[in-house]
Amino acid sequence: MISKILVAVDGSKNAHKAFEYACDLAKKAGASLLILHVSEELGTVGYSINKELELDSREVLQKYQSRAKKVLQTHVDVMEAKANDVAEEVLRTADKENIDTIVVGSRGISEAKMFLLGSVAYKVSHYATRPVVIVR
Amino acid sequence: MISKILVAVDGSKNAHKAFEYACDLAKKAGASLLILHVSEELGTVGYSINKELELDSREVLQKYQSRAKKVLQTHVDVMEAKANDVAEEVLRTADKENIDTIVVGSRGISEAKMFLLGSVAYKVSHYATRPVVIVR
Repeated sequence: MISKILVAVDGSKNAHKAFEYACDLAKKAGASLLILHVSEELGTVGYSINKELELDSREVLQKYQSRAKKVLQTHVDVMEAKANDVAEEVLRTADKENIDTIVVGSRGISEAKMFLLGSVAYKVSHYATRPVVIVR
Repeated sequence: MISKILVAVDGSKNAHKAFEYACDLAKKAGASLLILHVSEELGTVGYSINKELELDSREVLQKYQSRAKKVLQTHVDVMEAKANDVAEEVLRTADKENIDTIVVGSRGISEAKMFLLGSVAYKVSHYATRPVVIVR
C-alpha cells in the first residue's frame, strides 16, 4: 500500500519537516522516495533572476537528496519542475509517477502565516485522488 | 517519529480506507494504533435512538479492533466519544493521547459528495498541530 512516496519541498521550514516525515515513512515502509521541487513560473522577471531561482531549486534538491540517501541507504529520485500552479504540478507528477502517498508541508516558503493551511497544501489535499500527509 | 497513530472511523467507505491505511502504516512503522469513533451529539433525538447510535458505534469499533488485531498481531486500543464537534474531539484526543499521526477519511458517513473534503477532514487538517493523513 505504501510503496512510492512523493514529497514536495521548497526550502521552507514546513517543507523540511515534511521531508523528514517522508524519509521516516519511506524508511519504515521500505518505500521509494521521490523528492519534487516545483518553482512558480515568474513570467515577469528577467533571465538572470530565473536562472538564479533554478540554481536555488537545484541546491535545495541536492541537499535533500544527499540527506535522504544517508537515511534510506538507497538511491533517491529527485525532480524539478516549473509551473504556474505548484499544487497542480504536484498532483500531475503524483499521477504520472504512480505515487501512493503525497507528503507536503502545511505552508510553503512564500505563504502567509495568517492562514492555517497554505494554498499548495490546501489544493493538494482537496484535489488529490490518493492519500496526502500534511506536516506541520 | 511515527510511533502512535490515531485513526478516526465512522462506518463510512472513506473511513474504512483510512483504517486500512492506518493499519498498514502502523504495521510498517511498528507503531501503536488507536481507533476512535466519535458520534455527533444529537440533542434532538430521544433516548432509544441515542441508544441505538451507541450500539452502532460500538459495533463499528469492535469490527475494526478485531481486524486491526489480526493485521498488527498486538493489542489495539479503541475509544468512543460523543461530541458536538467531531473534528474537535479528534484533535482533543490526539493531544491527550500524544498521537503523532492522525489518519482520517476525506469524507465522513453523512457528508455530501459535492464537497471535495468533508468538514471533519477539513477541520482536522486545518487545526491539527501534528501530521494528518487524508485518505480517499
